[in-house]
Amino acid sequence: MSRHRRFRDGFRWENVDLLEYKPQGTHFRAVMRQVLFDGARGPGAELRYFEIAPGGHSTLERHRHAHAVLVLRGRGRALAGSRITTLEPFDLLEIGPGEWHQFRADDDACLGFLCLVDRERDRPRRPDKDDLVRLRADPAIADFIRV
Amino acid sequence: MSRHRRFRDGFRWENVDLLEYKPQGTHFRAVMRQVLFDGARGPGAELRYFEIAPGGHSTLERHRHAHAVLVLRGRGRALAGSRITTLEPFDLLEIGPGEWHQFRADDDACLGFLCLVDRERDRPRRPDKDDLVRLRADPAIADFIRV
Repeated sequence: MSRHRRFRDGFRWENVDLLEYKPQGTHFRAVMRQVLFDGARGPGAELRYFEIAPGGHSTLERHRHAHAVLVLRGRGRALAGSRITTLEPFDLLEIGPGEWHQFRADDDACLGFLCLVDRERDRPRRPDKDDLVRLRADPAIADFIRV
Repeated sequence: MSRHRRFRDGFRWENVDLLEYKPQGTHFRAVMRQVLFDGARGPGAELRYFEIAPGGHSTLERHRHAHAVLVLRGRGRALAGSRITTLEPFDLLEIGPGEWHQFRADDDACLGFLCLVDRERDRPRRPDKDDLVRLRADPAIADFIRV
C-alpha cells in the first residue's frame, strides 16, 4: 500500500520517530537519527536522515558495508578513507567497505544528510590504539578526528 | 574507495550523466534522470534523481518492485495506488508492489525527487484498455492520469 508522509518544520517528518543516534557513548556528540525508509515495505535498503548539531560529530568507525550519503542541509566535513572533504547541500559521498569515516558539522551550522545502507549489514567497529596510531600518521586526519 | 561528487547549479552533479527518462514514447513528457548511486559500489539499491519540467509527467505504470520517493525540489502530485497526493520538498512517498503510479509536475513548477529502488527489479508495465477502464472508474483518477 502506498504511504505518504509529509515533511514538517525543523527537518522532521510525519510518523517518523526522532531517535538517538546511538544508545550511549562519548565517541559522538549531538547527533539525531530518523529512519525514513526501513526496507521492510520495499527496496531492501534503509534510508536514514542524520542531523549533527553545530560542533557535533558522528562516531569514527568502519564496517564492511558501504554508505551512500546525500547531504540535505547545513555544512560540515567528513573523513572517508584517507580523505577529508567539505560537504554542502546535495553533495554525494560514497564510503567504501572497510573505510574509516567520521562526519563533523561546522561550528556555526548543522549537518543533515541522508545515508543509504543495505538492510542487512555488519556492525561498526571503532578504532583501537594501533588503528589510531596509523590514522594519526596523517597530520590532517590527526587534527580532524574526534574519539 | 570513497568518492565525493559535488552538487552543481541546476540540480546537476559532478560526474553524473544527465539521461533521458526513457528511450522514447508519448506516455511521458519532459522528464530527465540522473543515477546518483547505482548500487555497484555499495548498498544493493539504486538512488536516482528524476526531474519533471513544469507541466510534464512520468509514465503511468506498475511493477512488482516498490518505490521509495523523497522530493527534493518543486511541486507536483502523484497517483499511488488509488490515492492522489500533493508533493512538496522533502515529502516521502512509498509506492507498494503492483500499485499504479504516475508523477506530474505542477504547471508552474518542476518536480524533482529521489527514487530508491532495488538494483535487481522487474520491468514496468503500462495499462491496457481494461486497466484504464478500471482506473477511470474513479473520476479523480480519470482526471489526473495522462496516457
